[in-house]
Amino acid sequence: MASTAAVPLLKDELDIVIPTIRNLEFLEMWRPFFEQYHLIIVQDGDPSKTIKVPEGFDYELYNRNDINRILGPKASCISFKDSACRCFGYMVAKDPSGKDINALEQHIKNLLSPSSPFFFNTLYDPYREGADFVRGYPFSLREGVPTAVSHGLWLNIPDYDAPTQLVKPRERNTRYVDAVMTIPKGTLFPMCGMNLAFNREIIGPAMYFGLMGDGQPIGRYDDMWAGWCTKVICDHLGLGVKTGLPYIWHSKASNPFVNLKKEYKGIYWQEELIPFFQSATLSKDCTTVQKCYIELSKQVKAKLGKLDDYFNKLADAMVTWIEAWDELNPSAETNGSAAK
Amino acid sequence: MASTAAVPLLKDELDIVIPTIRNLEFLEMWRPFFEQYHLIIVQDGDPSKTIKVPEGFDYELYNRNDINRILGPKASCISFKDSACRCFGYMVAKDPSGKDINALEQHIKNLLSPSSPFFFNTLYDPYREGADFVRGYPFSLREGVPTAVSHGLWLNIPDYDAPTQLVKPRERNTRYVDAVMTIPKGTLFPMCGMNLAFNREIIGPAMYFGLMGDGQPIGRYDDMWAGWCTKVICDHLGLGVKTGLPYIWHSKASNPFVNLKKEYKGIYWQEELIPFFQSATLSKDCTTVQKCYIELSKQVKAKLGKLDDYFNKLADAMVTWIEAWDELNPSAETNGSAAK
Repeated sequence: MASTAAVPLLKDELDIVIPTIRNLEFLEMWRPFFEQYHLIIVQDGDPSKTIKVPEGFDYELYNRNDINRILGPKASCISFKDSACRCFGYMVAKDPSGKDINALEQHIKNLLSPSSPFFFNTLYDPYREGADFVRGYPFSLREGVPTAVSHGLWLNIPDYDAPTQLVKPRERNTRYVDAVMTIPKGTLFPMCGMNLAFNREIIGPAMYFGLMGDGQPIGRYDDMWAGWCTKVICDHLGLGVKTGLPYIWHSKASNPFVNLKKEYKGIYWQEELIPFFQSATLSKDCTTVQKCYIELSKQVKAKLGKLDDYFNKLADAMVTWIEAWDELNPSAETNGSAAK
Repeated sequence: MASTAAVPLLKDELDIVIPTIRNLEFLEMWRPFFEQYHLIIVQDGDPSKTIKVPEGFDYELYNRNDINRILGPKASCISFKDSACRCFGYMVAKDPSGKDINALEQHIKNLLSPSSPFFFNTLYDPYREGADFVRGYPFSLREGVPTAVSHGLWLNIPDYDAPTQLVKPRERNTRYVDAVMTIPKGTLFPMCGMNLAFNREIIGPAMYFGLMGDGQPIGRYDDMWAGWCTKVICDHLGLGVKTGLPYIWHSKASNPFVNLKKEYKGIYWQEELIPFFQSATLSKDCTTVQKCYIELSKQVKAKLGKLDDYFNKLADAMVTWIEAWDELNPSAETNGSAAK
């Protein structure tokens, strides 16, 4: 199963965005957790097929026809037949009810406590109960910065790329690491979209999962792309990204041969993408997430367009995404101001 | 108890350096671990007092008179009445026997496996059994770099500064985090000298604990100073620093009032020191640890000398330390070449 929470913390409310091309059986399994929340379900694939949502849930369901109707020509920025479709849900998430519970409680704790991106704390998250900043940690940095992203991990079947899946088919992650930590400023990480929460108010417009899957040359890099863009923007705006707890149990391995087909260009391209994002800098004028994202799209076009024409299309889609975001979120232009 | 291992891995041998001003009762408690190793004991305080080393250990003992005799005028770079005295042991450590054991086994594993400072791996140390690089981790970075430092942690009484000790007298660290991770390039951390191992061949000359304690305006910043210098040099030479396992059990809290007296200038100064080390860059000519360290000493004098005259003295002592190191380690001038 895959769940992604977009958490508008300032309103003390919680949306959960679920991308799905299959049925929603896991909702039944996780009923006690999910039935307290407002669900935004983004149906991928053939919109004429009906998705079965079990009874008793509070949800909105969007299929491809809905996305096309709502966004019009801007719907081109939303991927098809790839989990990247989920980011449409981020765009429309707002205003549901919400209480803290179990698996999500840790995400909420992570997001509500500050991050410490400027100096490493060897006791990990200093804001957790029973922990603090250790000797030698500058006092001026102990206030921390707002946390924009909470990245949870997987137990059991690990989140490996196709080559590693093929080489280590039996490997399982059994190590429960009882830690949450801030990923330091200037360091990129592989953001997995399967167990992810973020503060939509302060970072939402950067959480675009790109053009992936159907009709595109790559797949399975949607969350990575979003993670690299998001981290660069968080670093620029002084926002924090945490990784670690909570874990989810991942029991269904995806097919490594199918994955290899989706990934092989990404595996090659990422060798260029990482240096690009590592050296990307944003100007001082970029004071909102939207401005940062538009600036980043220009750099994608200028520097990655020559790698493959796909990146020109992606850069255009990044602009369309921001236009669509602002259209559906008229007040969201102040995004990023919390980071000042 | 405090132990610090200087591990000349290339020779598959292990020295353990122990700084002490008290007796060595803990050696009896830890006999099965320590009796297999060659111990270098640096006696702090009054050299006329005799330290009791329990029978059956293979050791060399150095007191202040020995240090003065061996180093002559260069002995001025070795601190007195502060755990910074230990770094004399690093200078003379060489050539003992060694087998892997328990608490030290993890340090040795950490040092013998590569580090991954250029990109964060969300499954932590990818070289541990049962772990690997996750999806989205560039393949070109998976070879890693040599590990120079293994920084272990404390359970029970945490390594807090005096203000935090005073505010949280009862806090205990009970969270065993089953992880080892590379501290990313460009990120500083608070290195504690109590549970530390390093590869003396590739980073030894940077492991200078400064001028602390007796006759100096500060104490309890010896390991921090060494850590900041070491991290800047590791980042420059492409070497890795790991933190996490192994844990040691820390049962005897130091006196927070005494600590406050030793620390208060350091607490103030570190607000200047951290930006200094964060922005320190070394020139391409700095191809060995010694050259890096001398270059850093010049920057200390130029930029921190105006903060307090103490830093001029410290910068001079850094140069003396390298001169003494090269004198006692005539072949060590090639240090750092492993990082090319």
